[in-house]
Amino acid sequence: MISEFYTPIRTIMTPGPVEAHPSVLRKMATPTIGQFDPYFLKIMDEVKEMIKVPFQTKNKQAFAVDGTSRAGLEAALIGLIEAGDKVLIPCYGRFSYLLAEIAERAKAEVIYLEKDWYEPFQQEEIIEAIQKHQPKIVTLVHGETANGQMQAINKVGKFCREQDIFFVVDFVATYGGIPLAIDDWCVDIAIAGTQKCVSVPSGLSLVTYNDRVEQVLTARYQKELGLSKNIRNDNHITSNYLDLSQLQRYWGEERINHHTEATSMVYGLHEGLRLLINEGIEAVWDRHALNNRAIEAGILAMGLAIYGNPKTKMATVTSIMVPEGINCDAVRAMLLNEFGVEIAGSFGSLAGKVWRIGNMGFSSRKENVLHVLAAFEAVLLFHGANINPGAAVQAALKVYL
Amino acid sequence: MISEFYTPIRTIMTPGPVEAHPSVLRKMATPTIGQFDPYFLKIMDEVKEMIKVPFQTKNKQAFAVDGTSRAGLEAALIGLIEAGDKVLIPCYGRFSYLLAEIAERAKAEVIYLEKDWYEPFQQEEIIEAIQKHQPKIVTLVHGETANGQMQAINKVGKFCREQDIFFVVDFVATYGGIPLAIDDWCVDIAIAGTQKCVSVPSGLSLVTYNDRVEQVLTARYQKELGLSKNIRNDNHITSNYLDLSQLQRYWGEERINHHTEATSMVYGLHEGLRLLINEGIEAVWDRHALNNRAIEAGILAMGLAIYGNPKTKMATVTSIMVPEGINCDAVRAMLLNEFGVEIAGSFGSLAGKVWRIGNMGFSSRKENVLHVLAAFEAVLLFHGANINPGAAVQAALKVYL
Repeated sequence: MISEFYTPIRTIMTPGPVEAHPSVLRKMATPTIGQFDPYFLKIMDEVKEMIKVPFQTKNKQAFAVDGTSRAGLEAALIGLIEAGDKVLIPCYGRFSYLLAEIAERAKAEVIYLEKDWYEPFQQEEIIEAIQKHQPKIVTLVHGETANGQMQAINKVGKFCREQDIFFVVDFVATYGGIPLAIDDWCVDIAIAGTQKCVSVPSGLSLVTYNDRVEQVLTARYQKELGLSKNIRNDNHITSNYLDLSQLQRYWGEERINHHTEATSMVYGLHEGLRLLINEGIEAVWDRHALNNRAIEAGILAMGLAIYGNPKTKMATVTSIMVPEGINCDAVRAMLLNEFGVEIAGSFGSLAGKVWRIGNMGFSSRKENVLHVLAAFEAVLLFHGANINPGAAVQAALKVYL
Repeated sequence: MISEFYTPIRTIMTPGPVEAHPSVLRKMATPTIGQFDPYFLKIMDEVKEMIKVPFQTKNKQAFAVDGTSRAGLEAALIGLIEAGDKVLIPCYGRFSYLLAEIAERAKAEVIYLEKDWYEPFQQEEIIEAIQKHQPKIVTLVHGETANGQMQAINKVGKFCREQDIFFVVDFVATYGGIPLAIDDWCVDIAIAGTQKCVSVPSGLSLVTYNDRVEQVLTARYQKELGLSKNIRNDNHITSNYLDLSQLQRYWGEERINHHTEATSMVYGLHEGLRLLINEGIEAVWDRHALNNRAIEAGILAMGLAIYGNPKTKMATVTSIMVPEGINCDAVRAMLLNEFGVEIAGSFGSLAGKVWRIGNMGFSSRKENVLHVLAAFEAVLLFHGANINPGAAVQAALKVYL
């Protein structure tokens, strides 16, 4: 006989996946109903509206893609890209390169605007590159999970709109944790995930787009063989599974039969968004900002350095320089194994050089912040790091009290 | 304030999504742990092994794709297809055309072998077409959800292997409900889902493949930008999200960082497979066969006709002819609204002409069979159908007692 799986309880202070809200988990255990059951369609309709709130958008189209965040990123990009299209991608961290990876696979001509991962671009640099290269699409990451830096985008968006360029933005690390205003910023397609500030397990991606994008998608629509042999389109999207032109008709009034919706994930998403909206989106943003100040104060009081430009640091991730002589992974392993606390390392050029403490969703709460600071201090002292004992938690408490 | 969602309890006797097992739902409510947490890696490793049991395969590679069943179908096909490749698709129902849709979007040259949806092909017909067209890939649906018919494939598989042709088979509607032996049948890639006989909600797809396929995938591997700029490959797979060559390294010992695994869905999958294996895979197949006999006996005793060739009917779906003068959808609506019982209609040329009763997973149990027969009879009588009152449940009871 195979045994039931066992999992310990963790305090998850990574930049995702974070702790799912207990109420989300309970709702996910709700019995299955059919994908076209009227009660399920009502849930889908409510989810569509709720997705819009953290984006602050009046877009008609907003729905979930049944895959993790990068499924939504790929769906967004391949919905717009045709082979040979110029796509400009300002890169200041790992996930910028994910957008590039997706665009290259979609046979776009990718134009890279690159710099080290210390900070984002000045918007003027991006605008200059747009003027020079005249791309069809500009895509970038709003908040870079890999380094904790955030790109200002309002001027870039406005410039793209004036030039009739599509502006596609990855909000996976900021959605639900940081104030967004995607309509004001002229974002054409915005993408987010569930496993960060929405406090829902990984598995769905959230997508919203405006009428400009909907026109493109509608022009590329091809109804699936098996439902119709007559609605063919030479310019169809290359994927069937990640085809937004079909998905919008599945989530819309037409209810075409595409995939079988992931019932339990949508249950969880409904609950995660509902809790966030009932808390009040501004209150949610304020909570993340407050806990971020406490984390920063604690880390600095310990005598550690925060990586990246402090002016463009995002509230949902804090990147901490690993001191000389300390092993990044050994500290993480001891935090996990002795304290049940998970923090992250990083990728690429930052691997082994920075720790990342997340501050997202249900994990973004006072007791978690205090716990991670106390445990982190203890592990660093155990490893012989030269830090100020006792200072971190006191500094954080002063932020709260 | 937005209210919590409400869902009624349904008896789901469609061909999927079916009722998730209560124990699966409870396990899905387990708190989140990190995707690389040692406890989660253990769960993933156990899932890999358990996926193989209902397929009866010794393949090394078996894992979940984070998307619904068709995500796995697309991942499998685009992993093998290069633009211009000949793909032969014998079509005898809707989901055959889904394979065609995916292959066409992947720029394959699709060769259709078509017939009406009444029954599958003689294997000799398929082998003849293979000889004539010499495709690189043959792909077909083992059990057609749309009509309840099942294609014998052992000779086709053997012939493909002899000719060095890849054989890709969709087992979504038969996996876990009907005896499979994919190694004996020379299947190169086999795909299934969670929302049918595994009694897990929709949201993951299950894929297994042999060394022949792994060689192709490994030759197409391209490591993601952001993790490495140097591992490029001109012949890479066109999707990043559905790239099996990356996914096998995420699920394998290398643990490359690809997507963020859908924790709760994998929890559910672990439990669904565990229950099925602990029940005994032969016992599970027998249970489905027994309940199928009871459904068939009940439907025939009522005086209704079963659609399709009885010799090739699969045990997990029963397609029932809608009698003259009876409205297919009105019957389904009354079943749902008055009895809380869900059965399905069908697609394409069968829309409005057949009902489909599913017999899958946790829904495949005696009390559900008896309940759906009793309710179906009552609704048909209410609609004035000329059937034998009282006969259906008695006929089913005789199968059981």
